[in-house]
Amino acid sequence: MESGNNEMVPQWIQEIEQPAALVSYIYRTCQRYFAKELATYNLGWGHFAILMAVNEMDGPSQDMIARSRGFDKTMVAKSVIRLEEEGLVQRVTDAHDRRIKRLFLTEKGKTVFPELLQIGLTLNTAMFAGFGKSTSTQAIEDLRKIALNVSKL
Amino acid sequence: MESGNNEMVPQWIQEIEQPAALVSYIYRTCQRYFAKELATYNLGWGHFAILMAVNEMDGPSQDMIARSRGFDKTMVAKSVIRLEEEGLVQRVTDAHDRRIKRLFLTEKGKTVFPELLQIGLTLNTAMFAGFGKSTSTQAIEDLRKIALNVSKL
Repeated sequence: MESGNNEMVPQWIQEIEQPAALVSYIYRTCQRYFAKELATYNLGWGHFAILMAVNEMDGPSQDMIARSRGFDKTMVAKSVIRLEEEGLVQRVTDAHDRRIKRLFLTEKGKTVFPELLQIGLTLNTAMFAGFGKSTSTQAIEDLRKIALNVSKL
Repeated sequence: MESGNNEMVPQWIQEIEQPAALVSYIYRTCQRYFAKELATYNLGWGHFAILMAVNEMDGPSQDMIARSRGFDKTMVAKSVIRLEEEGLVQRVTDAHDRRIKRLFLTEKGKTVFPELLQIGLTLNTAMFAGFGKSTSTQAIEDLRKIALNVSKL
């Protein structure tokens, strides 16, 4: 894996005209950051994203996580198995529909969660270094608008 | 693979606070778009990105492409093999240093290139639907700034 901190990269970033290429670069670099930071937890970015979803949603099923986040179902299924092995999430059969397994953080998951959240917050802060408050808000709104645009592709 | 066009996705996009998650969603959706559009060429996004690099740079080596774009070297090596198999790029030994193999588009590569470029341009237009000229320019500059910020991680 290449280091993100390469003298040729900033030059390319300055020259590139293709926003999709910038998004790709940001994504890959964030993913590398997560890989490094999450290694001690034996987790990758996919696991992290699913933990965030489990925390935000009210006992979601795997299928709900996949559909709401646009994730591949197989990726979610595999990640949930790992998260269970790590003792961070548990499956609970829905009280009204026994076919549905709902996901919740375990006690260990709840304990570890703030540390993981901090990894994400540190990344967000780094992403917007040098942005003012209003310009970072505007940039996030622009990202949201781009995300909505591409969701229609 | 999930369809990007899911009724739950827009709701999540509206609610999400994490810019890295928005970047991830945009990346994955763009990648799916490329996968679909490039299937007839037997190529994926990685191949596309490398063809763009070969076109922009003056006979780059694989190593230069990896370093300048922050790509994994193994990914570049594998992609170049496929691009050679498809007859789109060729390796030429550098006139001054026989250890260096420089990459160029073949005649077929030059013929196909405009069609591939159009796939990228269509995506860029879709990404910025509803943005004015100055707001899309600002949004791209913001992406560039974020890319530079994360390159320091």
